[in-house]
Order: sequence, then structure tokens, then C-alpha cells
Amino acid sequence: MRILVLNPNTTEAVTQMLLAAARPAVADGTELVGLTAPRGVPYIASRAEAQLGGAITLEMLADHHRDYDAAILAAFGDPGLLPARELFDLPVIGMAEAAMLTACTLGQKFGIVTFTTTMANWYLDTVDTYRLGARCAGIRARSLAFSAIENVQAEKEQAIAELAREAVELDGADVVILGGAPLAGLAPRLRAQVPVPLVDPIVAAVKMAEALVTLAPRKAAAGTFSRPPAKATSGLSPALAARIEHLDTLATAAQ
Amino acid sequence: MRILVLNPNTTEAVTQMLLAAARPAVADGTELVGLTAPRGVPYIASRAEAQLGGAITLEMLADHHRDYDAAILAAFGDPGLLPARELFDLPVIGMAEAAMLTACTLGQKFGIVTFTTTMANWYLDTVDTYRLGARCAGIRARSLAFSAIENVQAEKEQAIAELAREAVELDGADVVILGGAPLAGLAPRLRAQVPVPLVDPIVAAVKMAEALVTLAPRKAAAGTFSRPPAKATSGLSPALAARIEHLDTLATAAQ
Amino acid sequence: MRILVLNPNTTEAVTQMLLAAARPAVADGTELVGLTAPRGVPYIASRAEAQLGGAITLEMLADHHRDYDAAILAAFGDPGLLPARELFDLPVIGMAEAAMLTACTLGQKFGIVTFTTTMANWYLDTVDTYRLGARCAGIRARSLAFSAIENVQAEKEQAIAELAREAVELDGADVVILGGAPLAGLAPRLRAQVPVPLVDPIVAAVKMAEALVTLAPRKAAAGTFSRPPAKATSGLSPALAARIEHLDTLATAAQ
Amino acid sequence: MRILVLNPNTTEAVTQMLLAAARPAVADGTELVGLTAPRGVPYIASRAEAQLGGAITLEMLADHHRDYDAAILAAFGDPGLLPARELFDLPVIGMAEAAMLTACTLGQKFGIVTFTTTMANWYLDTVDTYRLGARCAGIRARSLAFSAIENVQAEKEQAIAELAREAVELDGADVVILGGAPLAGLAPRLRAQVPVPLVDPIVAAVKMAEALVTLAPRKAAAGTFSRPPAKATSGLSPALAARIEHLDTLATAAQ
Amino acid sequence: MRILVLNPNTTEAVTQMLLAAARPAVADGTELVGLTAPRGVPYIASRAEAQLGGAITLEMLADHHRDYDAAILAAFGDPGLLPARELFDLPVIGMAEAAMLTACTLGQKFGIVTFTTTMANWYLDTVDTYRLGARCAGIRARSLAFSAIENVQAEKEQAIAELAREAVELDGADVVILGGAPLAGLAPRLRAQVPVPLVDPIVAAVKMAEALVTLAPRKAAAGTFSRPPAKATSGLSPALAARIEHLDTLATAAQ
Amino acid sequence: MRILVLNPNTTEAVTQMLLAAARPAVADGTELVGLTAPRGVPYIASRAEAQLGGAITLEMLADHHRDYDAAILAAFGDPGLLPARELFDLPVIGMAEAAMLTACTLGQKFGIVTFTTTMANWYLDTVDTYRLGARCAGIRARSLAFSAIENVQAEKEQAIAELAREAVELDGADVVILGGAPLAGLAPRLRAQVPVPLVDPIVAAVKMAEALVTLAPRKAAAGTFSRPPAKATSGLSPALAARIEHLDTLATAAQ
Repeated sequence: MRILVLNPNTTEAVTQMLLAAARPAVADGTELVGLTAPRGVPYIASRAEAQLGGAITLEMLADHHRDYDAAILAAFGDPGLLPARELFDLPVIGMAEAAMLTACTLGQKFGIVTFTTTMANWYLDTVDTYRLGARCAGIRARSLAFSAIENVQAEKEQAIAELAREAVELDGADVVILGGAPLAGLAPRLRAQVPVPLVDPIVAAVKMAEALVTLAPRKAAAGTFSRPPAKATSGLSPALAARIEHLDTLATAAQ
Repeated sequence: MRILVLNPNTTEAVTQMLLAAARPAVADGTELVGLTAPRGVPYIASRAEAQLGGAITLEMLADHHRDYDAAILAAFGDPGLLPARELFDLPVIGMAEAAMLTACTLGQKFGIVTFTTTMANWYLDTVDTYRLGARCAGIRARSLAFSAIENVQAEKEQAIAELAREAVELDGADVVILGGAPLAGLAPRLRAQVPVPLVDPIVAAVKMAEALVTLAPRKAAAGTFSRPPAKATSGLSPALAARIEHLDTLATAAQ
Repeated sequence: MRILVLNPNTTEAVTQMLLAAARPAVADGTELVGLTAPRGVPYIASRAEAQLGGAITLEMLADHHRDYDAAILAAFGDPGLLPARELFDLPVIGMAEAAMLTACTLGQKFGIVTFTTTMANWYLDTVDTYRLGARCAGIRARSLAFSAIENVQAEKEQAIAELAREAVELDGADVVILGGAPLAGLAPRLRAQVPVPLVDPIVAAVKMAEALVTLAPRKAAAGTFSRPPAKATSGLSPALAARIEHLDTLATAAQ
Repeated sequence: MRILVLNPNTTEAVTQMLLAAARPAVADGTELVGLTAPRGVPYIASRAEAQLGGAITLEMLADHHRDYDAAILAAFGDPGLLPARELFDLPVIGMAEAAMLTACTLGQKFGIVTFTTTMANWYLDTVDTYRLGARCAGIRARSLAFSAIENVQAEKEQAIAELAREAVELDGADVVILGGAPLAGLAPRLRAQVPVPLVDPIVAAVKMAEALVTLAPRKAAAGTFSRPPAKATSGLSPALAARIEHLDTLATAAQ
Repeated sequence: MRILVLNPNTTEAVTQMLLAAARPAVADGTELVGLTAPRGVPYIASRAEAQLGGAITLEMLADHHRDYDAAILAAFGDPGLLPARELFDLPVIGMAEAAMLTACTLGQKFGIVTFTTTMANWYLDTVDTYRLGARCAGIRARSLAFSAIENVQAEKEQAIAELAREAVELDGADVVILGGAPLAGLAPRLRAQVPVPLVDPIVAAVKMAEALVTLAPRKAAAGTFSRPPAKATSGLSPALAARIEHLDTLATAAQ
Repeated sequence: MRILVLNPNTTEAVTQMLLAAARPAVADGTELVGLTAPRGVPYIASRAEAQLGGAITLEMLADHHRDYDAAILAAFGDPGLLPARELFDLPVIGMAEAAMLTACTLGQKFGIVTFTTTMANWYLDTVDTYRLGARCAGIRARSLAFSAIENVQAEKEQAIAELAREAVELDGADVVILGGAPLAGLAPRLRAQVPVPLVDPIVAAVKMAEALVTLAPRKAAAGTFSRPPAKATSGLSPALAARIEHLDTLATAAQ
């Protein structure tokens, strides 16, 4: 199966970090393909950036969805996830969502740690969107200085470990999620320093993507993720416009 | 005071309907200015369209926010509302949010009625985002055929009235919100046909906007709506890029 | 429009403070009329006092409701609010309710601060009654000594500012409500000392009252706030007895 | 032990029905004394009537609390319960509360049935006040005509049985509470007609009162039901004024 | 009436402590009979031990249920309570459940204190099972060393009192439950040291058992606690097998 | 990796059905081993049967846990899941839990269908235990007659399809879980008959098990699933007694 690892941030180095963390986790026969946002911000850290990043996600998916069995939104916070599920037919998995759902099997309460306080506000919205607030012990963030986004985990490993321990000791977290794409691959290095299981969101996401491709669910023809009716558009990217206007489907049907 | 009525849909006729419904409601000295989205869809009716509409909302606000005392997001569902509150300094009010909060003073449970089932899925997300689920009796929608979006209320008045009565009788709504910008101004005409109070969202929104301008709240320097730190961008509209990069503030400070 | 500012406390000086804080906030054409409870306690600070104050509120409304377009219950905690909505036809707004609903547009979580711990217990009930617990960061109170109830804000300004900062820093409040009628008008003076928006409940209430009069909702003929059937009474104040017995309506109908 | 059965309604016949239903349920040594409200309404059926009835309850308790080991508020809906717990030292039990808590041991979800729809609105507030909404399957009411309040159960037995069966079949109730003082004593007669356990609130209340007297809890000196500080009053009944002003305690202390 | 005090732990000394604490609380005519688990663990302190203890509880009830009017599961945490209600006809009361429901009449929020942190995890599940989380201020536990389980309260009285005070001061508990069978009878000794009411679970349980026997509820023939259909079994204790296979009922019917 | 498929029911034919449905779903290198309960009931359908089945599950795990990388509790309802996570070191996955968590990626609300109403009561407890009630549209069950438990799906395919459609149309389910081990493998056959995605719990469970083995979480040394302290036992199975008494660990350490 082919899985798209769609990074809605513009930092190619983060996409490579995600792939490097994910590849050892995939099953035989699973191919991961990375895709970095052509515009936007180096890393999404606020609701406003997520609003824009989610729109760019939809553009990227409109261009590429037909080539994959599933797609992963590879920014913790999952910008554009519910819209993508509505608009496209393939399974789409959010890195935050997959991490939280997986964490639910490892503890009664999960904590999330991250490296800017602005992100924490947005992540809290995400927890609420998935109605998992009753499973969340809290989100711990500290705004840490770093030289470049791809260097966060190298430079801030000890600070992240400390946040994780605080999540356990002060918030009562039974399991800790390392939130934010730039922390991909860090979990094994912190294992000995934190007394509870750690979840690396990109690993959780690729395994959930494999699970969904295996389940082979039909596209919903009813309910919340059924495809919206065709709608006229103006000023949108060609592929996205075609998808919203149902022109892509007509084209396929006419072939 | 000057209040921006920002319609994230591309249909100018709907902007005019909103203004026509809102103008009789404003206080002396309140000026309403309409603004229609330069691109997007004629009316936002799905999560995917809201994701895009919210991004366009941010672009529009970046261009215009300095000229107003407050802004109203004039699409029920409030695309981009929380991001806008984070990014800009003026009070920003959502039509759905204002309608729900106002309805809370008229009943223990509000119902929402609208004219496409796709919209209902998105509106339900909105209720959850505001954590008002315990005050919501339900959302009633039927996908009604109409000749053009600006003609919905003229053509479907009886169907909307029937949905409102069902909200009361079957869902236990104590007050009914007429959801969707194209229903602006309809409430008074249905008054005799529905046994509970009706809320017209644009009227609720302009009064809430006036309230916030009167309260004159400071821009948050802490908490969830404090301004995110400066961030590099690429490929965004100039004004929006400047706002995210904090270049606008530097420019202002340099003057 | 004429709005009744009904103070269920017996302290005329507090009524005057409320009017002084509210008058600059009203629109052209809005007239505010104050009314102070003829019996009861100088300021309601407990559930028992609220039970009695709410009963006195109903007596006062029975005497005066026909002369106003809307009424504000001008004691934070809103004694008698839901009963008044049931029994009378005009819109009735609670100062606590209006403050909380308005605060919801300024942050994801509001905090409430006040000057006696007994009040905090009652206010917490109020948050629950409105099912806004998921929006409330907490209630912070300290029992502060003061010379007279109308002097609280003058004497305790710094203590209130400190509570508000604690609400932000320790509870995560994004916006702070200054709870208690004796704090009316204090918000602007604290603006520079607290890093988030502040809400003055009486200002929120008069703007909400104006909004409701503008919306001109019909009296509910169904649902939770429809008028209860006529009931015999004994030993109640004449106007209240007439209202409960439906004698006032018969009298009106007979004219 | 002596338990006061305080009926905040003015109908002595209902007080007698309550005592007749309760007396077979008490333990040896428990004495029940009835007290009927000296003013108010024949039976409380709305929030407004409950506001007044709760105030009268406090007056009655102020006059009598020293003569009893515990008091039962013998109107389903429990007008004045939380204020009474705050103000007085003896255990005070609500008939609705005791019925709901007891019902929680007989099913996962309880239903409540009653004989006027206005009552149902108020009862729903009561369920929320006790934060038992997650245990409540619903409240079923029909506005039934009857000759006098003390004749409701005799005349409407079949209609009540039908409501109880609907609570089971349509709402999923595992246990049904017969709500409203005028239904006291009806449960045994409906036993064969309803497939789940029935709870008679006055029986639940007297047994809970006995339990609390046996537990002999201290009056709270901290927390939500600690006694409010002394407060000046005007125009209240003498005993109630003395209680609020702490004059009764001083008098006791001076003896 | 005869009430079975079923201790699912194997420590006879704890059974005797429970009976000693309970006997002064019963009404005239109530007989309490203790029964100690024939196998299992000395005191249940974890979910795994509760899973096993609940299974043993069902075996014990299968052997003895016909001889009693009601049964109390005398281990805080109530192992096997809901299964027992399903399977047997007599009222079954849990010590934790009875304590929490009774505590709801003494405060808006109850705290629970206990003497091992493992127990606290399990107790938290119990609070959730009863959907009383909104009434729970928290569970405070410290893993205290003791010489034998029946000596906990004698050796750790001061530590328990300190936990109770912390529940009040730090968690906001209005009433404190002394959790764990080995604390039976301790409440009166701590009365002067804790500023809020204390609940002894075994006392709450016997009074609730008396209440249910007095109410004489029918066995549910519908809803969640109706008896499951007959099922074949293998390898279970004879009486339990007979109960699940409905052989006991057939035997009774054949007599 | 080796994954134990532990069927707490005694029906070997159901174990074989589960393996047959699961094997096509596993990744290369995953070995599934089935294990059927040596005693208990043919299929667990009530809380009482789940209490016993969970105890048997712990016995089975005590005997076998060292030979596997993960274990699946292969009875929908997950008897003994939380206790197993506490007591053992390997990841343990519940079939119901995995199905619900996976369904959360395919819809906002999942429905569950099953073939006896008794099961539905127990499943509802399960949804609550995982605090996923806000994601659950409801549980639909009808007590269907069948010749043997392993024939349910062959004989009742149409009835199950009808329940699934009702879950969509009447309850608003966006995705439907086929609940109960005897329905393993049925989902693909119903695909064309139900308009939303279907989830086969055993497939969801094996993919979640693979995910957890890949994540390789450490055994919690803190929080809710840390191992309970050693405890004496009597009358338990030898391996389970050794595990609870920590004798197995000492034995391992001594080697």
C-alpha cells in the first residue's frame, strides 16, 4: 500500500525527519511518500496558521489523493482533517488523532507535551474536537528557544523530558504524547527518563493508516463524512475546484 | 463605531441581504460596512468550504481590520473565528456564536434549523467548539431545492417554518435559531407560525458587536487569544503575511 | 426603550453605582431606571439570601413589569432569573448570565473574581445552572474586610486586581469577570493591571438587554419559559398574586 | 429521632397523604411531624412558585429547626434545599434528591413521571442541580385534569401507570420515580403494572433522613454548606432575620 | 430484616470490624450477618484483585442470596456490584456507592481518602461507573505502611486525618468519605480534626440497605438489571452455575 | 511478532472464526495464536458472565503472557481488560476498545449493533468505561434466535444489516461496529447493504496490537497501569497467584 505523508508545513527537513521516524515502523509492502507544503509557514504553531495550513492541505490532497491508499496529515493538530474526510474518498489520518487514540490503550489519561505555549492552545481545541477531553490529563508547553525548527529535538531533549515527567507527576498522565512534528523519532531516546509509555505520533499515524487500508472501509454515502453536493467555485486551485465542483468525478465517469 | 460585516461567501446579494436585515437593528452612530469574499464559493455549506472560507476570511481581515472597531464573520458556522481572534486586535464576532449565546437568554435549549443537511454536520461541530452542546436541543435540516442562494428564504419560507415547529415539538427547543446567512431577515415573518422566540443571527451579531465595542476590552496579552509570535511565511497574501510576520506592527511602530 | 435595573439588594447606593457604570454604555434612546429592593439584605452573598432575594425580585417585577421593555436583575448570581422568565412576558436579563455569555466571545475560559468566599459557592451554582462549566476556568474569592458594601471597590481595588491576575496565571482564565454588583464600574481602572480582557457585568447586561429588545422575541407559548397555568395563592403580595392567578391578564382582557 | 416533614405547599391534605405514606416506612423510634406552609400556593408546580416556596421554607425552618433532628422538604423539586443546608445546622433532605439518589441503586437510568408539563421543566432543573443528568433517562409529564390536588392519584392512577411504562419502553428507564407529593403512597398500587422498580419519594426521603441522623455528621465549618457570615436584614420574618443576623446564636450563647 | 454483609476479602478480622461499626447503626429488627470470602486476597486493592473478588462475590451470593432480604458488598470499590444486580433478585448495595450517594446530601463535592495509591486508581473507575465524577472533588491516597490490614486505622489515624484535611483545603471537598473497609468505624474519632462531615461507608450502606428493603422494589423485568436469559456453563461453582443456567428457578418452580 | 488471541468464551469454533477473520489482516511476520477459555460460558452476554470471564482471562494470561508480544481480549466488551493492563507487562488490547477507537477515525459518531439485548447493557458500560459516550450514537440490539453461537452470522445476516441501517438512519451513526465475536468476518458481506463504513472488531484489534508492539511502550512504572504491589493470595490458580504475589518476578530475577 502507498501512504502519503503530507506535511502542511513548508520545512522539507521536517518531512524527512517524519519519514525517518516512520519508515522503521511500517509493515512489509507499505510505501511512504513525503510531500511538503509549497507555501505557508515553516511550522504551524497557532490556530491562524492551522486555518491556512488546512486550506493548503486540501489543495495538496486534491492534487495527489488519487495516487494513494491513505493519507496522513503530518502536523500535530491535524489541520484540515475533518474537511479532508468529507471531501475525499481515501482514509485520511491525523497525527494528533492517531496519537491520542493509541494513547487511550496505554493509560486512562494521556498528557501532551510540546515546545511552544501557542501550540498548546490549538492542541486543546484538537482534543475537544475529538471529544477526548475526559481522557486528557493536560497539555504542558514551555516556549523554548531553538536555532531552527528541525533542531528542536536535538537541542531541547532535556526540556522535553522534564515536561513529560511533569505531565506524569503534576497532571497525572498515564502516558505521554510528544506533540509536534519536529519531535518525530524522539520517543525512544526519552524512554529511560520518563516512567510511563511515550507515544510518537507519526508512528501511531502510520500504523493507524495501515489499519484503515486493511479494513478497507467504503466511502460514506450517509452521515457526517459523506461527500458534499457539487458547488461552484472561483479563485481556487484547479484540482481543488474540480473536486468541489464534482468535475473530477464527471471526468472519471466520462472516461 | 464602524463594524465590518465580512461575508466569506462570494455572493454579493447575500451580503446585501445581511445588511438589510442588520441596519434596522443598529444603534445611532453604528455604521455597518459590507465586504464580500473575492474568491471561494457562493455559499459555504460544508467543512471543506469552511476551511477555505476561513483562510479567505483571514486574508480579508488582514486587508481591512485597521479600519474598523469590530468585525462580524457573516456566515453561520463562523469560519475562521478563533484564528481571527488570535491574530487580530479588534473584537471579532461570529454570527453562529452570537446567535447561540443570545438564544441562551431566551430558553434553556436552542434549536437550529437550516436548509441543507451538509450544513448541519458543520454546524454541529460549531456547537461543540463553543461547548454549548448542553444547551442545544438539536439541529434540524432538510436539503431543500432552490433557484439561487439569495432566493432560499423567499422560496422556502414554509419549509423553514415547519422545521422550526418540529424543533419545538420533537426536539424540545425553547428558542429557534434560523441558521445560514441566506435566512437573514426572515425571523419576523415566521413569528406567528412558531410558538417560541426566533433568533436572527445577523441581528444578534451586530448587537453583540456593539456590546463588545462598548466594553472596549483590551487585546489579550496572555491566554488563548494572545497574539502568536512572529513567524516567517511564503506564498500568502501580502497583508496576511505581514500580519503573521509582525511586519505590520513594526511598520506601525516605526512611523 | 425603557430598561428596569432591578437591584434585589436593599442598598440604594449600590443601585446608583450600577446606574453610573451603565449609563455611559447605553445607546441613544435607551432609558435606564433603577429600583432598589424594599426589604431583604444590604447585599446578597449566600444561597439563602438569594432564595429570599429572588422571591422579592418576583414581587418587584409583578409591580413594575408593565412599564418596561426589559428588566435586568442587577445582582451577580441572578436571583429569580428563570422564575421571572417563566412568569413575565418582557425579556429579563441576569447580570451574571450576560457577563458569562459575553465573556465567551473574549476567551475560551472565563474566570470570575469576587470579594467573599460565600458568594463563590453561590456563583458556582449559577455557572452550572447555565451549563457553562466547560467555559469556566474557576471562581476566585477572598473574604475581604470593608467598611460598607458601597466602598468595596474603592478600598479593595488592589486585592481584586491580584485575584484577577491569579485567575489568569493559576487558573488559565482568558478573560475575567468582576463578579458582584459593588464592583460595577471598576473594570476600566484595572485594565492596565490585568493581561486579559475584563468584563463589567452591568455593562454586559445593558447591552444584552438592548439586544433582546431589538430582537423583539415573542413570549414563548411552548417550551420551558411558557407561562404556567393560573394557580390560587394566599398570603402573597397583591400584584404577584394577581400575576400567578392570571387575574392581571383577565383584567387587561376585560378593559 | 424527630423528623420534620415540611410541606412548602398550603394543602394540609397533601401533608397528611405524605405522612400516611411515610409512617409505615419509619424505624422504631422515629417520629414524623408534619408542617404545612402558612401561605403560598396549594401545590408548587413552576419555577416561580418554587422560588416563593423556597423562601417560605426558610421561614418555616427558622421557626422550627431547633425542635428536630432532621427535616424533609416534602415537595418534589426540593424548593430551598441548598439554601437550607447552608443556613441551618440540622440535616435537610429533599424528596426529589432522596428519590433520585435511591433510584441510582436500582438502575443505571431513572425516569421521572409527573402530572403537569410545567412541573417537568422545574424538575429538569433539579436533576441538573444535583448533576445527575447522566443517570436520568428523562422526565415524562402530561397535563392531566383533576378535581383537587389531593385527588390526583385516585383519579389518574392509570395515566400515571401509562407514563411509567412509556418511561421504560421509550426512554429506557430502569427504575421510575413517581414525582410530586400528591403521588405519595401510589407506588405499591402500580407495582404489577410497570416492569421495573418504582420509587416513592417520601419513603426514600424518610429513610435517607434516618440515615443522616444515624451518621450524625458535623455541621460543615468549611466548604459549600458552611454557615454564611452574619448579615443585617430588613422586612424578614423575625426568626429568619435572627438566623441570618446570627442573633439566634448569640442568644443561645448568652444563655 | 436480614442483611448479608459480604466481605469479598479473606480477612475475617475486617469482617468483624465492619460488623462492629455497622451494628450500632441499624434499626430495631435489622439483623446483620457477616460472610468472609473463602479465597482471594486479604484485602482488594487493585483492579485485578477486584476482578477476581467480584467473581468470588457472585459465587458467595449464589450460595446465600435466598437467605437474606438484601446484601451489602463490603469492600469499598464494590467488586461485582452491577453483575450481582443483574443476576440476583434481592437488593444489593455497594459500600462505595452508598457512601457516595449519601455524601451527595452533605456537600456539592465529596472527597475520598484511602491508604494506598493503587486503590485510588480503582476507586476512580468506580466513581466513573456511577457517573458521579461531577460530584467528586478528588481521591487522595498515600501508600502508608502498616503491620496488618486490620491495624490500618489504629496505626494510621493521623495520616488519614491529614489526607481528609487536604481533601477539604486543596481539593475543595465539602464532605469526605473514608474509603476502604479497614477504615470502618474511624469516622467518629476524626470528627473534631476535619472541618466537614465524614461518611463511614459501612454505615451508609446498612442504612441504604434498610431503605431498599423498606421500599420493597420488584425485581426488574425490563431494563438494565433484568435477569439475563439462561446460559450453559462449565467449570463454575455449583450454585453459581445453577443460577446462570436458571436451574435454581426451575427447581423452585418444580417444588 | 506473536500475538495471543485470547477468547474468554469456551466455544472453540468462535476462536477459529476470529482467527479466520483476522489472519488475512495481519502484516508479514505477525503470528496469531488462538486460546479458548477452559471454563465459563459458551459466549459472554451479560455483566455477570463478563465478571467471571474477566477473572478467567486473568488466569489464562497468567499462564501464557510470557510467550507473546501482545494479547487481544477477543470478546467484544473486553472482560478483564483494565485489570490485565495493570497486572501484566505486555500490551493488551480489547476488541471493543480497538473497534471504537478505530471507528473514531471514520465518523464523528459510531453505532454498535449486536444480537442480544442483554449484551447491549454491558456494551454500554464499556463505552462509558472508555469515556467515549460523546462519540457513540447508540447501541442497537435485538434478541435474535439462532441454532448455535457459531451460526449467528450465517443465520442472521439480514437482521444484522437491518440493525446497521437503523443505526445510520435513526441514531445518526456515521460508522457501524459489528459487536460480538460471533460476527467476526461479517463486515465485507454487508458492505453493499449499509451506506457507511463498517468496523470488524477483530481486524481493528490485530492492527492495534501490531501498532502497540511496533511502538514498544515501556511498562508503566507510574500512573494507573503500574503494577500493584505484591499481595498474598489463597485459592487462586498457581500462575495467577504467583503473578499477584510477585513470585514470578522473583523467580525470574533469581535465574
